[in-house]
Amino acid sequence: MTAGLTTAQLTEKHRAVLDQALDAIRSRAYWSPHPEHPKAYGADGVPDSLDAAQGQAAFEALRGKRFELDQPGTDGWSGSEVSPYGPELGIEYPHADLGILLPAMRAAMPAWREAGPEARAAVCIEILSRINARTHEFAHAVMHTSGQAFMMAFQAGGPHAQDRGLEAVAYALRAQTGEAPASAEWVKPQGKREPLKLDKQFTSVPRGISLLIGCNTFPTWNGYPGLFASLATGNAVLVKPHPRAVLPLALTVQVAREVLGEAGFSPDLVALAAERDGEGIAKTLAVRPEIRIIDYTGSSAFGDWLEANARQAQVYTEKAGVNTVVVDSTGDYKGMLSNLAFSLSLYSGQMCTTPQNLLIPRDGIATDAGHKSYDEVVSDVAAAVEGLLGDDARANALLGAIVNDQVKERIDAAAQLGEVALASRTVANPDFPGATVRTPVIVKLDGAKPDTEAAYLSECFGPVSFAVAVDSAADAVELLRRTVREKGAMTVGAYTTSAEVERLVEEACLEECAQLSLNLTGGVYVNQTAAFSDFHGSGGNPAANAVLCDTAFVAGRFHTVEVRRQA
Amino acid sequence: MTAGLTTAQLTEKHRAVLDQALDAIRSRAYWSPHPEHPKAYGADGVPDSLDAAQGQAAFEALRGKRFELDQPGTDGWSGSEVSPYGPELGIEYPHADLGILLPAMRAAMPAWREAGPEARAAVCIEILSRINARTHEFAHAVMHTSGQAFMMAFQAGGPHAQDRGLEAVAYALRAQTGEAPASAEWVKPQGKREPLKLDKQFTSVPRGISLLIGCNTFPTWNGYPGLFASLATGNAVLVKPHPRAVLPLALTVQVAREVLGEAGFSPDLVALAAERDGEGIAKTLAVRPEIRIIDYTGSSAFGDWLEANARQAQVYTEKAGVNTVVVDSTGDYKGMLSNLAFSLSLYSGQMCTTPQNLLIPRDGIATDAGHKSYDEVVSDVAAAVEGLLGDDARANALLGAIVNDQVKERIDAAAQLGEVALASRTVANPDFPGATVRTPVIVKLDGAKPDTEAAYLSECFGPVSFAVAVDSAADAVELLRRTVREKGAMTVGAYTTSAEVERLVEEACLEECAQLSLNLTGGVYVNQTAAFSDFHGSGGNPAANAVLCDTAFVAGRFHTVEVRRQA
Repeated sequence: MTAGLTTAQLTEKHRAVLDQALDAIRSRAYWSPHPEHPKAYGADGVPDSLDAAQGQAAFEALRGKRFELDQPGTDGWSGSEVSPYGPELGIEYPHADLGILLPAMRAAMPAWREAGPEARAAVCIEILSRINARTHEFAHAVMHTSGQAFMMAFQAGGPHAQDRGLEAVAYALRAQTGEAPASAEWVKPQGKREPLKLDKQFTSVPRGISLLIGCNTFPTWNGYPGLFASLATGNAVLVKPHPRAVLPLALTVQVAREVLGEAGFSPDLVALAAERDGEGIAKTLAVRPEIRIIDYTGSSAFGDWLEANARQAQVYTEKAGVNTVVVDSTGDYKGMLSNLAFSLSLYSGQMCTTPQNLLIPRDGIATDAGHKSYDEVVSDVAAAVEGLLGDDARANALLGAIVNDQVKERIDAAAQLGEVALASRTVANPDFPGATVRTPVIVKLDGAKPDTEAAYLSECFGPVSFAVAVDSAADAVELLRRTVREKGAMTVGAYTTSAEVERLVEEACLEECAQLSLNLTGGVYVNQTAAFSDFHGSGGNPAANAVLCDTAFVAGRFHTVEVRRQA
Repeated sequence: MTAGLTTAQLTEKHRAVLDQALDAIRSRAYWSPHPEHPKAYGADGVPDSLDAAQGQAAFEALRGKRFELDQPGTDGWSGSEVSPYGPELGIEYPHADLGILLPAMRAAMPAWREAGPEARAAVCIEILSRINARTHEFAHAVMHTSGQAFMMAFQAGGPHAQDRGLEAVAYALRAQTGEAPASAEWVKPQGKREPLKLDKQFTSVPRGISLLIGCNTFPTWNGYPGLFASLATGNAVLVKPHPRAVLPLALTVQVAREVLGEAGFSPDLVALAAERDGEGIAKTLAVRPEIRIIDYTGSSAFGDWLEANARQAQVYTEKAGVNTVVVDSTGDYKGMLSNLAFSLSLYSGQMCTTPQNLLIPRDGIATDAGHKSYDEVVSDVAAAVEGLLGDDARANALLGAIVNDQVKERIDAAAQLGEVALASRTVANPDFPGATVRTPVIVKLDGAKPDTEAAYLSECFGPVSFAVAVDSAADAVELLRRTVREKGAMTVGAYTTSAEVERLVEEACLEECAQLSLNLTGGVYVNQTAAFSDFHGSGGNPAANAVLCDTAFVAGRFHTVEVRRQA
């Protein structure tokens, strides 16, 4: 541990990583400082990190207890997390008296502002580095709140989330230091008279308290960008987790408070606002005047409400969309099938990036394995999913658990929407008999029949996808355009060997502003994005007004105040 | 003229200026490519530019005629501009059928997007350069719509506005090219297996049609940043001028359409939406789905309405604030008085940056000329204004004309608000007998009396200022804080020789987010900012949610679409 390092020492310690992160967001080549293999952690791996057994033990030690944070204004304790794998976590979190907590957070900000962008970046990286060392512990916390399978919880909830946090720190630093130098001399010639001279100082100042409204499925991955972007730009951050996924963010707050205190800042720059069941404090918090920034991932209904009502704040939302894959033709039919099968199955389709609508010409498609009819393509995709998930151990490792009853209900309801090409199967999980594990359902719909629109033009979150028969590739592109424009999309995929169809799909994505993956047949999937290289969302369609991570995501979190003096 | 240059040629032609602009926004040292002296234009000056006589003749030739723009969807003609100097302009502008014009503008965008950020920047600079050559013509157009005196209309409406436009182009280019490279190769190691490889392409895409809602007092200076920021990021721009200040923006649209057409793009990327008297099309336009960006300068009431209602758009507003000068002490009493007198007088205080409240301790202040009582300070400021404006010719050259009857009414009403320290005087303008020319009024108010708050805590746009007696410097800083927090401020000034008071004022400005000018006693004034170096507004207090110009001002105008393919 590095208790008590000064900000200068932290800056030195993390300079190389920060420089590499700044390079990576420029080059967008592959880079990560956070190993994604579980064995990289422990005695011979990442310094001071917990190995698998230590991580599990640390997680178990948290259960059935109060989670102490030593925040000002704690007026009670609450918590009711139940793992999607069955067990109750039994952890209680401090409940905040906002009238005490928010002023304490505000009071912490001037010293944090004065520290400057570089020092703030270094402290943020120290927080991420401590979190990284506890990745095995976080993996269990993410697994038992989101329902992700262990390996996914480990990677997406650990190193990949940490990458996204670090990426936000790099963007924040670049934006602040790029806005203006710390000082400037301004000399304006006046012909024969003396020139006008001013000394100017420029300071990045925060907007205020930033509110992170966490989600159930990706508490760290979707939470870290906003948290670190706001903290790195000088704001205090109040973390309001989803009531069913508190632990991963409570741990994060704990580490942040510890590091901030050791570095000589007030720990109250980061605080937790856990809530009692049904308390709904997000709505109250979101419109408080102290809250000047909000980051939110979740339903479109509440995201739209925030955008409309939290007028005093900059609001960054990731909401719901309808993701499309255009299936026009392929030079690697087998690769396409296995790639699609994996995308549909991963975490039971409970990702905002999972494809929902597969648009397939009713006359079939050209492939390297010959012409395939619409029915053949659909049954081959179904068979690929069945093959992938045929073994229960592998199915459990890929699917994880269903996160809530609504997802289960949607799976069951999907069978009523059309002809079922692949029925959802219940998988037993021998380690966690309480887990609900379900394989994807695929339903055939005819895009030419108006009564099917209601199904495929609504987001059906979970392992439900629609094989929509379309008249032609051009028809598919038109439906893609309409879907993105009206419903939004986090991802678009397309398979085609035709340069013309490729051009049409690209043009549609450029005009409707959606991120496109073309002809993925290997080990990269349309639902996965990599920090430092891929943009998550576009910010330009109804699925999200923000991007993880781009300049717009950080630029509104701070302002630059100029003080000019006659020289 | 440079008719018909390709974008490659334009890029080459303007590369040096663009590089210098990019350097300037980084160093924030003094720079401008646009000469501010009238004699710099004409035969021996800026190439192909109009001299004074040619500029005036060009302006006169526009009067009493239809202003042809050859836009699609013109369904009538309207115009009722009357110069604040008296004469009717008699110019009629095309009235747009939005059902025809907006689709034409949208249709123009894909080719503009495909041209890429560098080509767009070059075309924008060519537009600015053509406008620059016609500065003498624009000066008359700005003078006879805003009421600015000729020299100010020439400089602020000409080169300074062009500087702000170029600054926005530089910011836009930096933000787009900095977001991502055009392409990247991503190679992720997979231990002993083959690495994962993706080819990625990144494209800046526009949000849609951008709406510029122009203002009466600074049609070009306040209009160019938004216009060029949107155009340079690939959007089409619809210009809706203030009905009393159409001509400067109509000329701008004309030049832009000419340059765009010559460079091979659709002229419909920039169009004019003039309106009939009382038509109020801004409200209709602002909520149309095609409008995805809005730039607005004007009243807080309509600015707040736009922010609340134009939910489909990114809304950038500059509204009203209450600007404060803290007068604590000075080492150059004479310099302070003359600097303040100039600031209060320039353009009859009709600037969003003009100081309104002078906060002066009731026990007086320390100066290099000895202790000065509150009464002495106020009467000395009044005397300095009287001295500055004692000569009618100089008064006319500095004051310009009162822009509308509401300003005149406020001047007359101000005398009822408290003891008048300086009465407003009517100045005759021998060249324009129809002009209303008024000197500033200064009213004494006691800050300790609650019934005076309503006066000094409201924006009183025009040549009205309040000498507010406060208990102490600390009291002044508290009132400054409250004023900025509740009412907003475009500028804050302070005079002090005390390091402690300076620290308090700076801290207040950093915490409440306001731009501060300290101890200005020479030829730079609190109400003036220079492009490439000074930020106009902070974006972080109620006076404005945007800054001219910073990264946040451009980052929300485009998105980056990624297309990734298996390598």
